[in-house]
Amino acid sequence: MQDQALHYAQTHQTETLDALKAFLSIPSISMLPEHGKDMQLAALWLVDKLNSIGLHNVKIMTTPGHPIVYADWLEAGPDAPTLLIYGHYDVQPVDPLEEWVTPPFEPTVKGDSLYGRGTSDDKGQLYIHVAAVEAYLQSAGRLPLNIKFLLEGEEEAGSTHLENFVIEHQEMLQADAALISDSHILDPETPVLITGVRGLTYMEIAMRGSKHDLHSGMYGGVVENPLNAMVTLLASLRDEQGRVTIPGFYDDVKPLTAEDRQAINNGIISEDSVLDETGAPVLWGDPDYTVAERKGARPTLDIHGIKGGFIGSGAKTVIPATASAKVSMRLVPQQNPKKIAELFTQHVLNISPDTMEVSIETHNTGDGAVIDMSAPAIQAAAEAYEQVFGKPSLYLREGGSLPIVPMFIEVLHAPVVLMGFGLPDDNLHAPNEKFHIPNFYRGIETAITYYQLLAERIA
Amino acid sequence: MQDQALHYAQTHQTETLDALKAFLSIPSISMLPEHGKDMQLAALWLVDKLNSIGLHNVKIMTTPGHPIVYADWLEAGPDAPTLLIYGHYDVQPVDPLEEWVTPPFEPTVKGDSLYGRGTSDDKGQLYIHVAAVEAYLQSAGRLPLNIKFLLEGEEEAGSTHLENFVIEHQEMLQADAALISDSHILDPETPVLITGVRGLTYMEIAMRGSKHDLHSGMYGGVVENPLNAMVTLLASLRDEQGRVTIPGFYDDVKPLTAEDRQAINNGIISEDSVLDETGAPVLWGDPDYTVAERKGARPTLDIHGIKGGFIGSGAKTVIPATASAKVSMRLVPQQNPKKIAELFTQHVLNISPDTMEVSIETHNTGDGAVIDMSAPAIQAAAEAYEQVFGKPSLYLREGGSLPIVPMFIEVLHAPVVLMGFGLPDDNLHAPNEKFHIPNFYRGIETAITYYQLLAERIA
Repeated sequence: MQDQALHYAQTHQTETLDALKAFLSIPSISMLPEHGKDMQLAALWLVDKLNSIGLHNVKIMTTPGHPIVYADWLEAGPDAPTLLIYGHYDVQPVDPLEEWVTPPFEPTVKGDSLYGRGTSDDKGQLYIHVAAVEAYLQSAGRLPLNIKFLLEGEEEAGSTHLENFVIEHQEMLQADAALISDSHILDPETPVLITGVRGLTYMEIAMRGSKHDLHSGMYGGVVENPLNAMVTLLASLRDEQGRVTIPGFYDDVKPLTAEDRQAINNGIISEDSVLDETGAPVLWGDPDYTVAERKGARPTLDIHGIKGGFIGSGAKTVIPATASAKVSMRLVPQQNPKKIAELFTQHVLNISPDTMEVSIETHNTGDGAVIDMSAPAIQAAAEAYEQVFGKPSLYLREGGSLPIVPMFIEVLHAPVVLMGFGLPDDNLHAPNEKFHIPNFYRGIETAITYYQLLAERIA
Repeated sequence: MQDQALHYAQTHQTETLDALKAFLSIPSISMLPEHGKDMQLAALWLVDKLNSIGLHNVKIMTTPGHPIVYADWLEAGPDAPTLLIYGHYDVQPVDPLEEWVTPPFEPTVKGDSLYGRGTSDDKGQLYIHVAAVEAYLQSAGRLPLNIKFLLEGEEEAGSTHLENFVIEHQEMLQADAALISDSHILDPETPVLITGVRGLTYMEIAMRGSKHDLHSGMYGGVVENPLNAMVTLLASLRDEQGRVTIPGFYDDVKPLTAEDRQAINNGIISEDSVLDETGAPVLWGDPDYTVAERKGARPTLDIHGIKGGFIGSGAKTVIPATASAKVSMRLVPQQNPKKIAELFTQHVLNISPDTMEVSIETHNTGDGAVIDMSAPAIQAAAEAYEQVFGKPSLYLREGGSLPIVPMFIEVLHAPVVLMGFGLPDDNLHAPNEKFHIPNFYRGIETAITYYQLLAERIA
């Protein structure tokens, strides 16, 4: 059965890539209200596709936000294990649009790469499993295990409604393991299993200093400028070593044990690799921790944008009435993102100058998690990687945040396998996002292999 | 002759306002390249108008940037004085457009106000003199003195090419006095003569931290974020009292003498008036100086915009590759704006972190000036104001920058009269710019009166 599926996948690569391109051409940007219709189109596209490859119970399930697409195939019977596959069909916004070399929603092949928004995060990786299931059902007419698809449309908008959905549909989603392909491996040849994800708290600070914009010649030096007040406040949120200065921020951060440090500093992430991937002149961060520790196992604070005033060409001398800033904090698993949101809010209000009316909004929060690598579902993933890539899988604590991971662990009591196929330089959330096409095909073969191995290991 | 002109002006108010509206409807934004054609249209509109009211030598004179419109009427003869009238036909950009209650280039009357971009700064005030000259020439067929118009198209873009133009055309522009109506009075009933203007140095700082945008989950805590680096740098440019921390910045700032302080603290500007005009919760600035001193006679530093990352709705977790910030400094007359630009550049480079590639651009610089109020041309202005407004004129040191003022003083050796008709709440450089219509008409009568008084005083 596995051989039939592998043969099918290998002989249908062109059709599979074309289908992915069609999926990618729908601009399903969950964060921008003007793309609401595109979100529906992307969900409907998935429903059509999942029906056509032979899945059952294919449906669009509403949430207070963007819908969730569900499908399953449970004909392997009650003795076979059930695998829940999670993916997200929404993508990040595309600005700055002018920096894209090819249009973000016209997927374009150049060399070994497929360029376009969502190629790697996460439509391309999600589609790996659609293609793997298709290969089994279209060649052998069956799968070696039961499969459930849970495809979300709000991951890039903070997965706001996912937790309630999972809690409400626990029975429908019950599985022996959950699988997510939304991460990256080390390089095209070296697979990586993720051993932990960071939590996230995303805030927005708004300040108002006057009832309308002012002329800096008339009011400079007399009425405080919200941009000046904002930079002073934002600058104070970190110290010179990059440590966050919010009181209580580190209270729940456990010191890394010698064992942790050994596991994290396994040589995968080096200063050189990060310099090479990013082109940064030098690296940066808390000198008490190594690059690998800072990247995956320490909390951070980043500013994502500051709005207010004039950013066009030329020289406008405005004191804007308002300014706002988006700030997020990546958290270690022990930190409670909601508590961090409260500490942030309280601290910012405490240090806000009396020249400003200040308001603070929590955009979203997501828990972190550390993954138990001894589960059979995860060992099977390492084996599948090795069979297809011909090289043992590495283990990496990932710096990104996948709120679905701790939620699956807590609500579904299922081990979560983070089996990704992206690359570190895929330009996630940035212009010219891409996906390495050979790993798209290798990903399909790895998925096909994994389904078989999981059936054997858990049966 | 003066009475005929006043009568003409009083009986042609509707036509005059309609002509101004036509002028205002041309979106002549000098700073935005996409409005290049509108700049030409505005210059051509002026040429037509100046020809039609009977001026001579009307011409568009090219510069390396936007053109200058020149016109004159020199029939008063060599014994009569010559007045050079300066104005600018370019306007500020209009963003944030969504905050305009009426479209910026559809001039709209509401109550006593005319709303639209340029109504007060400076098309409306410039047009006061076009209408005053028209009133003389169309009623009496002549003016009591010689008049020259110098109408610039780059004031809002830093008057980049004006100095060279004035130096090259010294003879053509030679005059006994220069008059600028591009400032505001205290309130609708109380005229104000400006006794000094601040200089300006406008800079832009650009930082690059990586070769492309990065995902904060993958690189937060390892690669420095240009927005974080930028706020730290910008916050350090002022101390807690708002004093600028650039070494050498205050070297040429003379302490205010007891006489200066008495003249400046004349009761016109109070904490209450500024709070009322701006709606600020509290005032701000160096506690060693009064509000009036800080507003007009002390240097300041303001941030006008910070570009980079994501400022749309929602929560995007990007570490942008680049960030930039626009910063300007208002200077007292003794400070050399070009020297300040050098000090700023050197200091910013000195304090820039090694995580960033930093580049610094000088947008423009403009000198400040203190005006000698004893000149007959200025005393005549005070008298004209009083005759029309029925109230003595006040004297005010203005916080804004008019680079033309020191240039006229130095290059043309002419006294400069700053006789404005705007109001402090005209929303200059902001949404919903407006002009108080009764003062538009009073301005025309004041100009008519001033031309006559100046002819008598200097003849």
